[in-house]
Amino acid sequence: MKITYLGPKGTFTEKVTKKLFPDQEISPLPTIRNVIFSIENNQADLAVVPIENFYNGEVRETLDALNECKQAKIIQEDSLEIVHCLGALKNHTTINKILSKDQALEQCSHFLMNKFPAVQTMAVSSTAEAAQKIKSENLLDSAVIASKEAIIDSGLEILETNLLKNNKTRFVIIGREQTTPTGKDKTLISIHPSKDKPGTLSICLGFLSNLGINLESIISRPDKKSGYYFYIELEGHNQDKNVKMALEAIKFYLDSENKHPDTIKILGSYKNSHWKKPEATLG
Amino acid sequence: MKITYLGPKGTFTEKVTKKLFPDQEISPLPTIRNVIFSIENNQADLAVVPIENFYNGEVRETLDALNECKQAKIIQEDSLEIVHCLGALKNHTTINKILSKDQALEQCSHFLMNKFPAVQTMAVSSTAEAAQKIKSENLLDSAVIASKEAIIDSGLEILETNLLKNNKTRFVIIGREQTTPTGKDKTLISIHPSKDKPGTLSICLGFLSNLGINLESIISRPDKKSGYYFYIELEGHNQDKNVKMALEAIKFYLDSENKHPDTIKILGSYKNSHWKKPEATLG
Repeated sequence: MKITYLGPKGTFTEKVTKKLFPDQEISPLPTIRNVIFSIENNQADLAVVPIENFYNGEVRETLDALNECKQAKIIQEDSLEIVHCLGALKNHTTINKILSKDQALEQCSHFLMNKFPAVQTMAVSSTAEAAQKIKSENLLDSAVIASKEAIIDSGLEILETNLLKNNKTRFVIIGREQTTPTGKDKTLISIHPSKDKPGTLSICLGFLSNLGINLESIISRPDKKSGYYFYIELEGHNQDKNVKMALEAIKFYLDSENKHPDTIKILGSYKNSHWKKPEATLG
Repeated sequence: MKITYLGPKGTFTEKVTKKLFPDQEISPLPTIRNVIFSIENNQADLAVVPIENFYNGEVRETLDALNECKQAKIIQEDSLEIVHCLGALKNHTTINKILSKDQALEQCSHFLMNKFPAVQTMAVSSTAEAAQKIKSENLLDSAVIASKEAIIDSGLEILETNLLKNNKTRFVIIGREQTTPTGKDKTLISIHPSKDKPGTLSICLGFLSNLGINLESIISRPDKKSGYYFYIELEGHNQDKNVKMALEAIKFYLDSENKHPDTIKILGSYKNSHWKKPEATLG
């Protein structure tokens, strides 16, 4: 079995992929799109990509790439706690600069504003690289936001631990098989209305709520032409009766003559891991 | 007048800030949150931050930071076309690695997958730094995604221009003054329902559509407790009669006893620049 994941090596995606497939060979690919299309084009059997961070929100590249696929679907979700620490050289001076990966700097923006309002931030390609850079270039006035392991492995000192509470990233396994309902599932869909008038979205969401279907998330995206996609994650499996009925009703409402095959697409149904705690639904 | 913007120097935010305030002194700050809170805390008069990229979507840090403010509001929007080119050393060999800023790599993921499916990507803190790195370290097997100017200024050769069509970033000016309606405005609101049941969102959107109010975008965000925020950009000014009425109705529906002051917040009303072309509304 061939398994791909978003590389490079040493990232959180590799960590979760190894956890999910401990005895398998896994291959990194350079972009999320490459990873998802390795499934779409039958070059791999399963793939792992990030889909959401608790602080940064949805990973649009994952949503958009899945939406371009016919075969590749989400079949499972899992999450990983991302614990950020602050590190520096043991003989560090006043900290004037903080290095990390872009996303980590963004996640820690509250911490940075409160504790280091005047420092310069600098993004590098990975948190591990940031830690190594401080060591190898002897940057006495710089600190790094990285994992505890990366800070210690680079010979730096930990100044502060756990900069963010409940910072988790959700990952999804992509495959080509249809999953079977477990009774505790979620479904990710995209809706692409060809009608463009006030109320379209409200009516579509009404079909869901009238059948007792909760939403987990919603996000609109320009379709790069003149319209929009909505990505909606909802409670239930696409084979559950109420979900099936609601999606058919939305399809009929938006495209009664069945002229637009991509009006509504199922990007996957998968067991709800309740990765966000405390749990909540959108209503 | 004190004007702040998201630094460092040499970024697209600086470019748009200079365009908007050609004769003023402008000061960079390290994070979006710092910039927005310089207005909230009366340390500056106006500020400029990015809020959306056509390919990458909304900048969550901007939405979340605005939502934490009482005084700081969006008062104007503007956009900038971001033209990415591919560059390398004149005597480059086969390209095995592509360097750029994270967001640029993400924006160009289609291009990368089609033209360079096997190359390694590497994120650095800015596109200009990526170009300089290739020159200074004589990286013969590497290319950079950056602006034409950054590639030429670093003494590299342009291999391909305009990797992406219609790649624009939208920026907002943050201030503390209330704007006056122009008849062609948009309003960004956040809704924070305390009720949590199927249908809440559909009903809220119904109040808008029933009064003829179009949506421009919608996005849900966990509130870090047990609920959600919705960020909704809609057509009209918060002083327009229909918008005022709809927002009051939503407030009454969600919080009839007026117990939760942050149930609905106006993050700004500003003239619609129609930055996305072709134009579209969500319905």
